[in-house]
Amino acid sequence: MQSRRQFLGSAAAIGAVSAVGSAEATAALPTRADIIIIGAGLAGLTAARELVKKGKSVIVLEARDRVGGRTLAQATQSGEMLDVGGQWIGPGQDRVRALVDEFGLKTYQQPHTGTKLLKIDGRLRSYEGDIPALPLLAKLDLGHMFSQLNKMAETIPLDAPYSAKNAQAWDNITLESWKQEHMRTPKARALLDIVAQSVFGAEAGDLSFLFFLFYLRSAGTLEKLINIAGGAQETRIHGGTQQISDRLSAQLGDALRLNNPVRAIHHGGDGVKVIADSGEYNAQRVIVAVPPHLAGKISYNPLLPGLRTQLMQRLPMGSIIKCIMVYDKPFWREDGFSGEIASDEGPLCAVFDDSPEGSHEGSLIGFIAGDGARRWTEHTRDERRDAIVKQFVECYGDKASKPKEYIEKNWLEEEWSGGCYEAFMAPGVMTAYGKALRAPVGRVHWAGTETSDVWCGYMDGAVRSGERAAAEVAQLVA
Amino acid sequence: MQSRRQFLGSAAAIGAVSAVGSAEATAALPTRADIIIIGAGLAGLTAARELVKKGKSVIVLEARDRVGGRTLAQATQSGEMLDVGGQWIGPGQDRVRALVDEFGLKTYQQPHTGTKLLKIDGRLRSYEGDIPALPLLAKLDLGHMFSQLNKMAETIPLDAPYSAKNAQAWDNITLESWKQEHMRTPKARALLDIVAQSVFGAEAGDLSFLFFLFYLRSAGTLEKLINIAGGAQETRIHGGTQQISDRLSAQLGDALRLNNPVRAIHHGGDGVKVIADSGEYNAQRVIVAVPPHLAGKISYNPLLPGLRTQLMQRLPMGSIIKCIMVYDKPFWREDGFSGEIASDEGPLCAVFDDSPEGSHEGSLIGFIAGDGARRWTEHTRDERRDAIVKQFVECYGDKASKPKEYIEKNWLEEEWSGGCYEAFMAPGVMTAYGKALRAPVGRVHWAGTETSDVWCGYMDGAVRSGERAAAEVAQLVA
Repeated sequence: MQSRRQFLGSAAAIGAVSAVGSAEATAALPTRADIIIIGAGLAGLTAARELVKKGKSVIVLEARDRVGGRTLAQATQSGEMLDVGGQWIGPGQDRVRALVDEFGLKTYQQPHTGTKLLKIDGRLRSYEGDIPALPLLAKLDLGHMFSQLNKMAETIPLDAPYSAKNAQAWDNITLESWKQEHMRTPKARALLDIVAQSVFGAEAGDLSFLFFLFYLRSAGTLEKLINIAGGAQETRIHGGTQQISDRLSAQLGDALRLNNPVRAIHHGGDGVKVIADSGEYNAQRVIVAVPPHLAGKISYNPLLPGLRTQLMQRLPMGSIIKCIMVYDKPFWREDGFSGEIASDEGPLCAVFDDSPEGSHEGSLIGFIAGDGARRWTEHTRDERRDAIVKQFVECYGDKASKPKEYIEKNWLEEEWSGGCYEAFMAPGVMTAYGKALRAPVGRVHWAGTETSDVWCGYMDGAVRSGERAAAEVAQLVA
Repeated sequence: MQSRRQFLGSAAAIGAVSAVGSAEATAALPTRADIIIIGAGLAGLTAARELVKKGKSVIVLEARDRVGGRTLAQATQSGEMLDVGGQWIGPGQDRVRALVDEFGLKTYQQPHTGTKLLKIDGRLRSYEGDIPALPLLAKLDLGHMFSQLNKMAETIPLDAPYSAKNAQAWDNITLESWKQEHMRTPKARALLDIVAQSVFGAEAGDLSFLFFLFYLRSAGTLEKLINIAGGAQETRIHGGTQQISDRLSAQLGDALRLNNPVRAIHHGGDGVKVIADSGEYNAQRVIVAVPPHLAGKISYNPLLPGLRTQLMQRLPMGSIIKCIMVYDKPFWREDGFSGEIASDEGPLCAVFDDSPEGSHEGSLIGFIAGDGARRWTEHTRDERRDAIVKQFVECYGDKASKPKEYIEKNWLEEEWSGGCYEAFMAPGVMTAYGKALRAPVGRVHWAGTETSDVWCGYMDGAVRSGERAAAEVAQLVA
């Protein structure tokens, strides 16, 4: 009880107490709490906050030297904070939106007015509005694709996608197989490839069709996943999304322990013992709020059940290198361009105007994704930069040839993510292992955006998963 | 140099020196060698032996309290040693055969004469010879399947399957998709499902068609994979296959350190430092000879390249529960049965006569595999036993109802394997990541049956991978 009051006390002191950053410094701090949370991304920090609200004590162990997980702000040379991780929020993402509002973070609309560019089949096309300038047959094919995918997705129960009527048949094939069978035009097919790359960091051939439909359903519709206005790319946050985690963690005070990779969880008795690099921590329960494959790197004693053990081998992360090119000004706007580019040639498969509202600088943000990321991760930073400049020059002319700065984040080489944006499922995984995704194992509970039924894979899903895990645990902890 | 002589000295002492079994006891032993090998399965032990032969010093760090990895002998109550892991060798498996011969292990033919049983579509059929008793159309379908699969497999270059002419198209689909498109009869399809289950511990819907073809090619033909006579199930070893590892490790003396899980590898400088539970070990190079997903649990400093990091997230283990029912005698032989059963109903998808040559006992060995394993791992041992007895009674009558003993190994719940028999690839993995499978990263080298081009997934592949890794390293170590 004393430890609980102590944590609440420091949580109340807020802000001024900075997180403890070295294993040595943590030695004098409490190592016992009601609940230990592993991972200080949005899921873990939300869970921590909810539990503290309910009067529980927590310790949050984070492997990195920072909070935020797959959200991360990086400053340009002129001091603008840009997102090299999770960037946008959109309608329906109510839980992350509530945090943004509560913390008073200022938001603005993702710029999207102007001419858009599409490079497929070796040809650069420009168009206005939402529908790419394609031949009629390709447009019809695309329209058919949207309606078919949305219709199938509607049949998927979000809380148990593996129980959908056609679950087994859909889980037996890749999205690519569906595409080959049901789409007729190469151009519409190319657009679906770009969707797979830019939404999952994967290829249509990597993804279980059932998982793809679940993911679409989890967001609402395919349009919600890919659109700016009315979709998941609608709104940005001044100063970057990592601030949400900063604010959440400020409330935790010294209950947050950075630089503390967790190596083992002993959970067989009447409590849990968590072994981190700085020592042992004890609690009644533990919430593991990291990507599933990282949860799989932890040793569990006793071992987890076979289904859970093998699930964690089967949730690879997508492949994303996020790239930002900074210019003196957003020159493309002068020429009537929105900054949006979709390309089947790359290196970037999707590009957006990244200029922060009110900034004099102009920047373009794009993704090297899926097979592109697997190819380009083998090159040097400079080679990537040069290829992207070339891509922009082809789209916007010589003005694009002189960036003042290049920023990138290769998420494949981030130890404590292993990829981005999220884990995906290959064929067969959802039907055979889906039910183990968030089922607690004794005193071990699971959070993270991959465990969310709504907005799975997004910041909003992470927040929801933290809230769900906290509610799950709170009623079990005396 | 001194340490090398020391190791060679103890290697020469052989046999009488038992492996050191506790972290404490290893404290006084050398912690420096030319090469550190992680994993004392067939791959690691073979690599160790080859390197010692070439005058190099080695330390082998093994997480378990035993050698042999996915080979494991277990005694029946009457003292017969039965394999609950890798069990058979066959023609073409020359490298493992060479060890068996060198160590003078006695082999015998897997019994296979007599009537075989096949349960598909709810009906139990019996047949003689190799070709199941099916209606003509199903037999034709099956014949077509064999010839088509073997023909396609022939086009795959074993050293670079991702460069096959049709690699991308084949890697975009599951084996299930191929089956649905090219096989016409439900009965022949059911047999292909049983092949996927019994060979991979996976479902046709889990497997990349390219990976499936590569695997087939790696063995030679589909017949080689599934047959007893002339195939991978032809020959057994008196006393069990784990003896090969026992003999290999006896030559290592105290260079073998059991109970030593490796947690981290520092490989950035002019040597490697390996962090195990018993302390630090130093060497010029390291060979990681464990399944890829377990290699992914080790921390690498510096981080491995993105491609290798993500590959290790993408090689899940198959799902196998190996089950042995021991009877007073092999009563099925009296009734003319071979002991072989194939079933699409289970729990066991494939069954063989397991009675050791010369034993009075009779036993049947079978596999719960793929989705079956994922269902049955959620049940108790007794429930599995009862269901298997029921399956045997249906096949062989009441004589099967009174086993004297039930032995099983649920490989899903083996911490240091995570599944069996081997890792497989879902769609998209081979083409995007295949080239990272055995490419060394600086001073870190890779072995294990999954890295073998010949007999990938088998004991023979493990031995070959150890030989290959040893040759690779030997020329780089002064």
